Amino acid sequence: MAYLTSDPAISLDGYLAGPGQDLEHPLGIGGEGLHRWHWEEADENAAEIEAICTAGAYIMGRNMFSPGRGEWDPDWKGWWGDDPPYHRPVFVLTHHEREPVEMQGGTTFDFVTGGIEEALRRAVAAAGDGTISVAGGASTINQFLRAGHIDELRLHVAPIVLGSGEALFRDLKGLSFEIAASRSTSLVTHVTLRRVRG
Amino acid sequence: MAYLTSDPAISLDGYLAGPGQDLEHPLGIGGEGLHRWHWEEADENAAEIEAICTAGAYIMGRNMFSPGRGEWDPDWKGWWGDDPPYHRPVFVLTHHEREPVEMQGGTTFDFVTGGIEEALRRAVAAAGDGTISVAGGASTINQFLRAGHIDELRLHVAPIVLGSGEALFRDLKGLSFEIAASRSTSLVTHVTLRRVRG
Repeated sequence: MAYLTSDPAISLDGYLAGPGQDLEHPLGIGGEGLHRWHWEEADENAAEIEAICTAGAYIMGRNMFSPGRGEWDPDWKGWWGDDPPYHRPVFVLTHHEREPVEMQGGTTFDFVTGGIEEALRRAVAAAGDGTISVAGGASTINQFLRAGHIDELRLHVAPIVLGSGEALFRDLKGLSFEIAASRSTSLVTHVTLRRVRG
Repeated sequence: MAYLTSDPAISLDGYLAGPGQDLEHPLGIGGEGLHRWHWEEADENAAEIEAICTAGAYIMGRNMFSPGRGEWDPDWKGWWGDDPPYHRPVFVLTHHEREPVEMQGGTTFDFVTGGIEEALRRAVAAAGDGTISVAGGASTINQFLRAGHIDELRLHVAPIVLGSGEALFRDLKGLSFEIAASRSTSLVTHVTLRRVRG
């Protein structure tokens, strides 16, 4: 049975990216503050950082894979260099077909034009015994939350207020979780939430 | 030197109350879910519950003190019965003057028509060596955050998504805190944030 996780880093006011995202500011204005714990406290947060990339397959939105829209630039192979940290199949949601891209280290990018349900079916088939991680961005995680598919939401809450940007919980309501665990350093609170099945 | 704390209970999407607040739903639709940890896990959360009412003086908005607006109903003496849990001076922000109300157990309600700065001056004078707690509601805490007055923000985050209501961080941006501590039970994550002074 498929088990879906997601690891969004969000602000206290629930934004996964600040306003004004572009090539220069891929996380929006102020959004880099969401990830300071990654860089400035890598040792203290090693367990949580490592856990982000232990799934059997990944799903991400085009917004997370590339800065562009419309037809594909075939030279664009993600933000992560030749050897992305996934080492497993990654299914990228898009409206534009593209042949799979094979990277070093076992990561493949497969492009899915049939929406989140097709992405989920293909990820389940590819994941083997592993979990499936919905990697981002905000809109993709939001769609999976809305559909009730996320079993374990691992929030990484940075102690900042962004004021606007990409809201993780946009237009959602009535969701309820159980808190399985939490832990904090000075720059992040990790909270593991499990879905309450009604 | 005055030390200001605040203990808002909020949802994952940052709401301190749900939509549709009225006499029947003082916390709005779904808002009672913000406080389940108070009632269903009172023992596990005893330390945090007790810490909420240990200040030397309190400040609250009229919205927290009474359901009404406009001129005062002199019979209304708060939601808390004859012996409110504060046992110290409580300064209530209002646009309508009213004589102080003395309750049992040491709680007095003083009514302040000069805005948050007057309330703060009077609370400092009344608190002695104690801290000052900004008790709520959302608009009052929001004003104190905006003015940079909250030294220690103790969030009590319930694992629910309300979707709309009274947003704690409404129209704020660029705030930054340091995480001093966190702890969770199945129904709440307590996060103690200290203001980063720029």
